Amino acid sequence: MSLYVMKFGGSSVGDTERMQRVARRIVEKQDEGHQCVVVVSAMGDTTDELIDQSKILNPNPPAREMDMLMTTGEQISMSLLSMAIHSLGREAVSYTGWQAGFRTEPVHGKARITDISPIRVKKALDDGKIVIVAGFQGMSDDGEITTLGRGGSDTTAVALAAAIHADICEIYTDVDGIYSTDPRVVKCARKLNEISYDEMLELANLGAAVLHPRAVEYAKHNRVQLVVRSSFNYNEGTVVKEEANMEQGVVVSGIAYDKNVARISILGVGDFPGVLAKMFGELAKEEIDVDIIVQSGVLNGEADFSFTVSLGDRERALSVIEGIRDELPFRGVTFEDNLVKVSIVGAGMVSHPGVAAQMFDVISREGVSIKMVSTSEIKVSCVIDGSNLQNVVQALHTAYGLDTDQQATVGGPQERR
Amino acid sequence: MSLYVMKFGGSSVGDTERMQRVARRIVEKQDEGHQCVVVVSAMGDTTDELIDQSKILNPNPPAREMDMLMTTGEQISMSLLSMAIHSLGREAVSYTGWQAGFRTEPVHGKARITDISPIRVKKALDDGKIVIVAGFQGMSDDGEITTLGRGGSDTTAVALAAAIHADICEIYTDVDGIYSTDPRVVKCARKLNEISYDEMLELANLGAAVLHPRAVEYAKHNRVQLVVRSSFNYNEGTVVKEEANMEQGVVVSGIAYDKNVARISILGVGDFPGVLAKMFGELAKEEIDVDIIVQSGVLNGEADFSFTVSLGDRERALSVIEGIRDELPFRGVTFEDNLVKVSIVGAGMVSHPGVAAQMFDVISREGVSIKMVSTSEIKVSCVIDGSNLQNVVQALHTAYGLDTDQQATVGGPQERR
Repeated sequence: MSLYVMKFGGSSVGDTERMQRVARRIVEKQDEGHQCVVVVSAMGDTTDELIDQSKILNPNPPAREMDMLMTTGEQISMSLLSMAIHSLGREAVSYTGWQAGFRTEPVHGKARITDISPIRVKKALDDGKIVIVAGFQGMSDDGEITTLGRGGSDTTAVALAAAIHADICEIYTDVDGIYSTDPRVVKCARKLNEISYDEMLELANLGAAVLHPRAVEYAKHNRVQLVVRSSFNYNEGTVVKEEANMEQGVVVSGIAYDKNVARISILGVGDFPGVLAKMFGELAKEEIDVDIIVQSGVLNGEADFSFTVSLGDRERALSVIEGIRDELPFRGVTFEDNLVKVSIVGAGMVSHPGVAAQMFDVISREGVSIKMVSTSEIKVSCVIDGSNLQNVVQALHTAYGLDTDQQATVGGPQERR
Repeated sequence: MSLYVMKFGGSSVGDTERMQRVARRIVEKQDEGHQCVVVVSAMGDTTDELIDQSKILNPNPPAREMDMLMTTGEQISMSLLSMAIHSLGREAVSYTGWQAGFRTEPVHGKARITDISPIRVKKALDDGKIVIVAGFQGMSDDGEITTLGRGGSDTTAVALAAAIHADICEIYTDVDGIYSTDPRVVKCARKLNEISYDEMLELANLGAAVLHPRAVEYAKHNRVQLVVRSSFNYNEGTVVKEEANMEQGVVVSGIAYDKNVARISILGVGDFPGVLAKMFGELAKEEIDVDIIVQSGVLNGEADFSFTVSLGDRERALSVIEGIRDELPFRGVTFEDNLVKVSIVGAGMVSHPGVAAQMFDVISREGVSIKMVSTSEIKVSCVIDGSNLQNVVQALHTAYGLDTDQQATVGGPQERR
């Protein structure tokens, strides 16, 4: 007998028919002799409908009341799922975030979990019940209902799995698992059988719709073994764990990309101590995340440097820079929008030198020039012109031996939480 | 400065437009210098939609999970209303039943309030905020979410008004107040300016759609002054209080009727001690409410008696009686369905003898025979053939001087809770 946490996202419980399928799936797990704790998101469109109504009444609603409103979504889906399980002749009990013992910071819309006391969850399990817990929500110490923000239901599942010492935390979604790259870009993308937490984190922008990075970090920190799998079939899914058993000779596990990239270049900046600290300090104050930073060599006491921000932050970043022009003189600013960042990710890289060189070679053979580069222990990223995305990702996927014959299964709407 | 509790039912907050009107109304009250605590029901159709979904998944859902599901209805409407008030530039804060301190019995679907600790409500009022509380719901001592059953939101409002020592508890609904009789039956029904708790309770079947008897009992017991008024206009409504100031010469305040009546007659019952106790004890065990009971004189050691039950209970009542035929021999059973109970209600009756006689006279002059009669201090009820309802109610309404020239305002769908 194992203790499972099973998380079902919004599209998996999108309507009553899907809800019934999920109920059967949970009962099957119990039939195999396991204990089940289920974490659910709000049903498919519920969240959007609630947001639409709120926007009519207040285009800028207070975060506290938004949390009040949004948390009803999971409360509806969890109670309906419990009823569906009851109709299959099993005992089930649903708990809101606060009933399940989730304590969070006293902030709204993006609270972090501070403590979990799953007393009632454990008691109900001991009584032989299937326990259903609302994802995405908790309560602050002063009794306010809070939400965990994006990826909240994944985090709920992982955190609960850690707190009750579950054997496995299964994340059910609308795809078969984690893919070597986006199956919408590369038709012969392969489903990975295993992947390490670190690789998963680096592939975040591919996996975000499936598994939120915050949940992966939580899983890594608490050594919770994750399985990402489809709620629409019985395929095995992808295991995410500490040390993935490397397939023989596999250096690169996946190819990630980010289309949401803008480059800003600042030209002729006076070279005095603290110039970078000043520049990026001001950007940080405005909560603008800077990704890759490249500085040219200093010539005649002046340097050029470039950095990338997400497309949505580009305009704000430019105005921050204009705002400090007097303190930090420079000759000019340029920017470029139509860019993508392509990354190869693989824990095997550490022991295989020359991986970056091979990547540059593959890209150049596509006739594409590399505008910026950054590397980490298990990742190499290149910024290139956006029009080359498809070719480059496909070429890298082939070059690193990731192509498969099997068609990826991608169905249903994207998960929201 | 007065402290108001304002309760808005489901049709008053039925859509975002009505929600905005309610928000403006609350802000106007604050502008007059008052403190406002608002109790809301679920928005118009929300409850029905939730029930529909649950029925698909489980025709007989567990009451605990139904409470979990149904309580989201008020949580949605209260948070949306709070947002609407914020958009008018005022501070508002919404609380679920448990957050507002409502403790109930540990039963689902029809819990009674056991205690109210409105600490957070009072604190928010002291901070100058408009407080919005979910109607219909509470929490048991073991942290289970419960609902108060039919009329629950009215009860929430009255109980909260008592707990925070509110000056007035206003029940906003889709009619102008309490009427002398059903305006759908008698066109010249008049809106009452004042009515006593006791009269209101006797008129319950007229007022049920407007004000639940349980809330009236709670108000009477805690001396909470109620005002029933429309959320669609600024008419003055009906004040419900301990001693209504009788208008000069008014003996009868209202005419009530109940179309949901069946009569059962048991013929030739052996007259031995305990026969009535046995018969009605068995009916009570099955939770069948018996209303009027009439026993004929005993002849040759046998008696006939008749009683009324609500139409829905008639079949079960008959089978209970058949079930005890061996223990309690009788010669036969008959029943009659197409009946109505018409009642005249008025606190003034106590000091005016002959009111019942006048009623019988009015009914007989309509050529209608009276099948059963019952009386209380402030009420006389007659059971008559259902086809005579309209004529009899109209004749009584005229005879007791209740007719008015003004057309009643009855709009919008009936309130549910």
